[in-house]
Formats: sequence, structure tokens, C-alpha cells
Amino acid sequence: MSSLGVGVSPGNVPVYHGSRLKVIDRRVRLAELILRCLICGLAVISAALIGTDSQVREIFTIRKRAKFTDMKALVFLVIANGLAAGYSLIQVLRCAVSMVKGSVLFNKPLAWAIFSGDQVMAYLTLSAVAAAVQSGIFSQFGQPELQWMKTCNLYAKFCNQIGEGVASSLLACLSMVVLSAISAYGLFRLYGDGKEKSSLEW
Amino acid sequence: MSSLGVGVSPGNVPVYHGSRLKVIDRRVRLAELILRCLICGLAVISAALIGTDSQVREIFTIRKRAKFTDMKALVFLVIANGLAAGYSLIQVLRCAVSMVKGSVLFNKPLAWAIFSGDQVMAYLTLSAVAAAVQSGIFSQFGQPELQWMKTCNLYAKFCNQIGEGVASSLLACLSMVVLSAISAYGLFRLYGDGKEKSSLEW
Repeated sequence: MSSLGVGVSPGNVPVYHGSRLKVIDRRVRLAELILRCLICGLAVISAALIGTDSQVREIFTIRKRAKFTDMKALVFLVIANGLAAGYSLIQVLRCAVSMVKGSVLFNKPLAWAIFSGDQVMAYLTLSAVAAAVQSGIFSQFGQPELQWMKTCNLYAKFCNQIGEGVASSLLACLSMVVLSAISAYGLFRLYGDGKEKSSLEW
Repeated sequence: MSSLGVGVSPGNVPVYHGSRLKVIDRRVRLAELILRCLICGLAVISAALIGTDSQVREIFTIRKRAKFTDMKALVFLVIANGLAAGYSLIQVLRCAVSMVKGSVLFNKPLAWAIFSGDQVMAYLTLSAVAAAVQSGIFSQFGQPELQWMKTCNLYAKFCNQIGEGVASSLLACLSMVVLSAISAYGLFRLYGDGKEKSSLEW
């Protein structure tokens, strides 16, 4: 899809000139690859920590089992992490292929697809983390005004593991935010007011 | 801060040429202005709806008053809306001034400041909305596994008004997301591989 573009200028493909762009592009691509690997790893760790978490307590002969499906926000977070991990894996492969090929992304539809995907994933993971943190605050401190009891004093081990999972998700989410800025750079620099005015079209 | 740049090229200011850029820039700026006004209005409406909401109920001779400060997520949302409204107002003034002047944003530090501000506001409002929606879901449906009772059956009028406030915030948040993409365009097109290689520096 992408082209090296040395001397090639079909339609909206700007002329690729200067080694400076090449150096910057290589650095940006390396940062992108590292971040995408990091997100993939963190999302998998988070989903595993939350998805496998459970604790059994006996309270007055009643056996109670806490699991992540008791709270919809955690289910949402596991799903968001799963999507983030899958999406990142696909993007890692794309990055690796383009690095091996040594090609520079000048393809606008592809750049738009990557930008949109990264934006959606950043907003999705952030909202999942925010909802999970809110649920975690209720579980940790309760909400006395509404007679919602805190539950983390009963299920301390369970809550700790959930906390680790949410922290891992938060790191993945922050990396996603940085990545979405990188892909915005990758896309909108194609609209720079260069030699070719055709590259300014929306 | 910004310059028209016709024939002016000090350092990192690309040469401003072609009426196409001017037309696109005018459209983008108009969209930006409309969105910023919209966000300002929606954020004020949301903060007012949530901040002034209260309902008194008498349950077995006990007088109970529901107010937004009972739930930290709503306090966070009101604060986020206040920040969004204030920030948008400042940006509306900046947009209006630059439109009256007819200047095009070629100033990188200013573009970075706008981009960063918009990003922070988009992520802040989204996380506030997500936390408020999560709290709203608990209030509306309860969480039987944790013995958290639903409270919206007791305070229906209060919950409805909160719902309207959250919906208004959500619209403001979506506008903020679109705006942050516009400001990303405004910034990163300055890094396009045009005539001037100096504009490619990070």
C-alpha cells in the first residue's frame, strides 16, 4: 500500500526527498513499534489479571465467590483490553513489514485508517479504564450516602489483583494516547503545504 | 502570534501560497469556531443541570435530600464541564480574533499549545463522562451481587435531570474529540514534507 516514493508522484503521493525525513520517519516508526508492542503486552497482562481473578469467602456458612463478571465495568475493561491487544498485534505486524521494506507511509487512505483506529482505541480504552476506576472507588470506599457498602475489605486479594489489572490498562491507555498523536502526525503531515498543492485536498 | 506569511519565511514558517490552502483553512476555522461555541454552550448547560439538581424525599419521617455532591463522579463531571467551558471560551476568542485578522496558523508553539489543550480537554471530559455514566448505571440498575441498591426509583426527577446533564456532556465530549482531530491537522500539517526541510524538525 505504501510507497518509497523516490521520484514517484502518482496523484496524492508527495515527492520523497531528503534524508532528514527518512531519519525522522525511522525514529517515529521505531517509537510506534515499541509503543504498539508495549500496548499489546500490557493489554494481555491486564485482561489476564482481571479475567482470572476470583476469591471465595465464607460468611456465616454462606459461600460467596467474587469474580470479575460481577461488575459490568470489569467485563467492559477485559473486552476493551482484548480489542486493544488484537488491534495492536495487527499494527505491530504492519509496522514490522513496513520497517523491513523500508517504506514511508504516504498513502492517505491507509493513514486515515490507522489514525481512526488509534483514536477509537485510545478513547475506548480510556472510557473503559475510567468506568473501572469509578467502580473500584465505590468498591474500595463505598458510597455511604447511597448505602452502598465497600466490598474490598471482604475481598482484599481479589481487589488487589483487579487494581493491578486496572493499573496495567491505564499504562496501555496512556501509550495509546501517545500513539494516537503519532498517527495524527503520520496522517496530517501529508496535508502539509508542500510543493504539491494536490496534497492539500480533503 | 500567527502570521499571514505571504512571502514571509522566518525559520519554521512555511511559505503561504495558493488560494486552495486559504479556502480549506477558512472552512476548518469556521468548523472550529462553531464546535468551540457548541462545546462552551453544552458544557455550561450540563454543569448547570447537574449543579442545580436536587430532590427531597421523606422516607418513614426521615427527610432525605439528593444532591450532586453525594456522588464524586458528578462533582468531577461538573468541574470538567467548567474547565471545558472556560477553555472553549478562551479558544473562541482566539478563533474570532484570527478570523477577523484573516491570519493562518503557522506558529508551531501556538499550534502545539492548542493541540495539547484540546487533547487534554477531550480525554478529561471523556473520562468524566465515562465515570458519571458508570455511576448512573449503578444508580439506575443497582449491583445486586454487591448489595448496592438502585436509588433512581426513589429519586426519579433527580436522576432524569442528571441524565440530561450527562447527555449534554457527552455531546460536548464528542465535539471535543472532533476538535482535537482538527487541531491535530492544524499542527501536523506544519510538518508536511514541503519545500522547506526545516519544517520537518521535531
